[in-house]
Amino acid sequence: MIRFYNGKVLTLCGFATEITDSEVWVDGDSIIYVGEKRVDSPLFEREIDLKGNLLMPSFKNAHSHSAMTFLRSFADDLPLKEWLFDRVFPLEDKLTPDKVYHLTKSAVLEYLSSGITAAMDMYFFPDACAQANIDCGFRTVICSGVGGSAEGVKRLEREWKHFTKLNPLVSYSMGFHAEYTCEYELLKGIGELAQEYKAPVFTHNSETENEVAECRARYGMTPTQLFESLHIYDNGGGGFHCVYLDDEDVEIFQRRKLHIVSCPASNAKLASGIAPLCRYAEKGISLGLGTDGAASNNALDMFREMYLATVLQKLSCADASAMPAETVLKMATSGSAHAMGLTDCDCIDAGKKADLIVVDLNQPNMQPVNNIVKNLVYSACKQNVVMTMVNGRILYENGEFFVGDSVDNIYNNANRIVKEICN
Amino acid sequence: MIRFYNGKVLTLCGFATEITDSEVWVDGDSIIYVGEKRVDSPLFEREIDLKGNLLMPSFKNAHSHSAMTFLRSFADDLPLKEWLFDRVFPLEDKLTPDKVYHLTKSAVLEYLSSGITAAMDMYFFPDACAQANIDCGFRTVICSGVGGSAEGVKRLEREWKHFTKLNPLVSYSMGFHAEYTCEYELLKGIGELAQEYKAPVFTHNSETENEVAECRARYGMTPTQLFESLHIYDNGGGGFHCVYLDDEDVEIFQRRKLHIVSCPASNAKLASGIAPLCRYAEKGISLGLGTDGAASNNALDMFREMYLATVLQKLSCADASAMPAETVLKMATSGSAHAMGLTDCDCIDAGKKADLIVVDLNQPNMQPVNNIVKNLVYSACKQNVVMTMVNGRILYENGEFFVGDSVDNIYNNANRIVKEICN
Repeated sequence: MIRFYNGKVLTLCGFATEITDSEVWVDGDSIIYVGEKRVDSPLFEREIDLKGNLLMPSFKNAHSHSAMTFLRSFADDLPLKEWLFDRVFPLEDKLTPDKVYHLTKSAVLEYLSSGITAAMDMYFFPDACAQANIDCGFRTVICSGVGGSAEGVKRLEREWKHFTKLNPLVSYSMGFHAEYTCEYELLKGIGELAQEYKAPVFTHNSETENEVAECRARYGMTPTQLFESLHIYDNGGGGFHCVYLDDEDVEIFQRRKLHIVSCPASNAKLASGIAPLCRYAEKGISLGLGTDGAASNNALDMFREMYLATVLQKLSCADASAMPAETVLKMATSGSAHAMGLTDCDCIDAGKKADLIVVDLNQPNMQPVNNIVKNLVYSACKQNVVMTMVNGRILYENGEFFVGDSVDNIYNNANRIVKEICN
Repeated sequence: MIRFYNGKVLTLCGFATEITDSEVWVDGDSIIYVGEKRVDSPLFEREIDLKGNLLMPSFKNAHSHSAMTFLRSFADDLPLKEWLFDRVFPLEDKLTPDKVYHLTKSAVLEYLSSGITAAMDMYFFPDACAQANIDCGFRTVICSGVGGSAEGVKRLEREWKHFTKLNPLVSYSMGFHAEYTCEYELLKGIGELAQEYKAPVFTHNSETENEVAECRARYGMTPTQLFESLHIYDNGGGGFHCVYLDDEDVEIFQRRKLHIVSCPASNAKLASGIAPLCRYAEKGISLGLGTDGAASNNALDMFREMYLATVLQKLSCADASAMPAETVLKMATSGSAHAMGLTDCDCIDAGKKADLIVVDLNQPNMQPVNNIVKNLVYSACKQNVVMTMVNGRILYENGEFFVGDSVDNIYNNANRIVKEICN
């Protein structure tokens, strides 16, 4: 059993953002106590003196392609089409399960250093991805990125049966890559499968203006309206990016209680646009945040996403009060967790999974202290994350990683793969 | 003498962005050698094994109000006018030289942790600000923020004579707060003084649409055109922010070789807008970057500024190839240095001042390695700064500060002041 004491605790339960001087006990994979020091306290394996620092729920990355770390800084500052078709796609053809395994581990290190404890991961070779996460002790939600012909439906059903039982750290979400990479029969089949299994479905949705225009040309409706017509969204789920939803789309998101996972850094760097998050929030739509892959961000850093999520709204709404820090912090923690189906990892409360971070407040960017929550969104960065715990295990502490493999080994493998693929 | 070896060196001299395996020697306040290992090497006081990490020129912060650290996270998510008039201005009235001294030190810590070695600082009680910088060993360019009546001209002249001779770490730039806080007679006097001393002049210029509109209403011209008509810009200088320059303004900036110091984070958070940096760059105008004060950013972090400087251009130009990483890196280093008059602190070359940083490449956000320059702009963060040297002295190394005062003392003073002023 592990005890955290002598610090501040931000539980983020419900709508609360107040900070208390509680202590927190973790037993196995779960939080078992949050409250004042007790006289009947048990024997602890480890007692962690927070020294006034902040214990809070970890960030959850609700959209990523983890193994894309090999393309970090490989093809920046290029027009979107050239980036995707001439650079990204040809190199992805060279991936193998072994390569995805090692590259995913490289991303896991970065997640941990940024206080992220789970990613919703859509990429090639999901078995290799899941195994890398299991071996590191990291939590993952494998999201199918199926595309192409109706054959994909079988894969989706096979994956569903396989991944939902694989490991406590792994869960599965039905999904497909995007409207523009799926044949109509596949989309139709996915709708039927989702109904059969009562499964939520996630996909890239309305990331660019062009994507929506092409879908309208093909089907006479937007991607969201097409998915709705095919019953894909009958059991919930949601969209990654959602930069260009029209009013009818928004109404479908409301009615179906769909999640929007915004990726502001990726949308900015690829010049896709700014998702109107304030408009979505006003409609009561559940919002989460994702980093997208390292090829288009390029960091896997939830502090960056939070900062952009608020300041881009302030810019696009021409209103400095738009999208306050508290809302954005919820997006990066419970908002993402709920999109990912990780409802037991969303806050600090007895019975919840112990997915926690310690934030160093004794750094110049967090001083002097007027408001810790605003500091987290407007001035904190990776540097402030001094501990990351996943499922009750400390995987990152004071700059060191405990992921069952050496950091040098993970870097060397990633660089070897870069040489094999990119050069 | 200090020797840096066994690492990579990015000199950023001229237009170069290539990285070599050179070593670098520092003697006193200057770089004396950049090149291959030599057989005739002298005895060194210290030899620093870079272990493959990157030595590069430090960042220079060309616009800040350092002592505003006391307002970090004090009044976020508010409309601009309420923020400024109801929150910021009344509290600034409570500042004293002693308070500015301690609050400036708090900012210096953050600069160092972000790889910044100099700030162009416009704030109340410039003597206290200069002393804090001198005591820390930090470089500062005091920029006058004079406003009000023509009396200010005398202060400006007095400051000019005082600060230009004060200390090797301190230089001075003529300046004034902004058109909207200066009476016409003061602006006229500043123009005359600038001509007398052949001095460049800096000021807040066209930060908001409203500022430009009000100036037009008052004088029938933009701030830039007004300053030009009063000979304020005859000897160079430039503007902070410059979000809303019209074509004639841009032509004045070109002709007078004025610098634009962009503050993308502050402009975003206050919903002021996005400065059209691509348009300015096309016209050959010299561009630098600044953090602005901690009240409106809220971090003092050049990695954030660089990232925003490029992605906001990509968004506003709807072009993912806009404002490439190399351009932005130059803005944050030599571009800012030149705006600040620190022409001997702009790159790594024999004879230049030793204002240097070491960037840790062995962190997950910098791995695997495809392109280090792109990594610096698109994925690096404060966490990667492992050493900051100012004027030949190491003031920050591996998380520790060497600024002649304890970190605890600086935080305690800053928090005491927050209690006195903000509560």
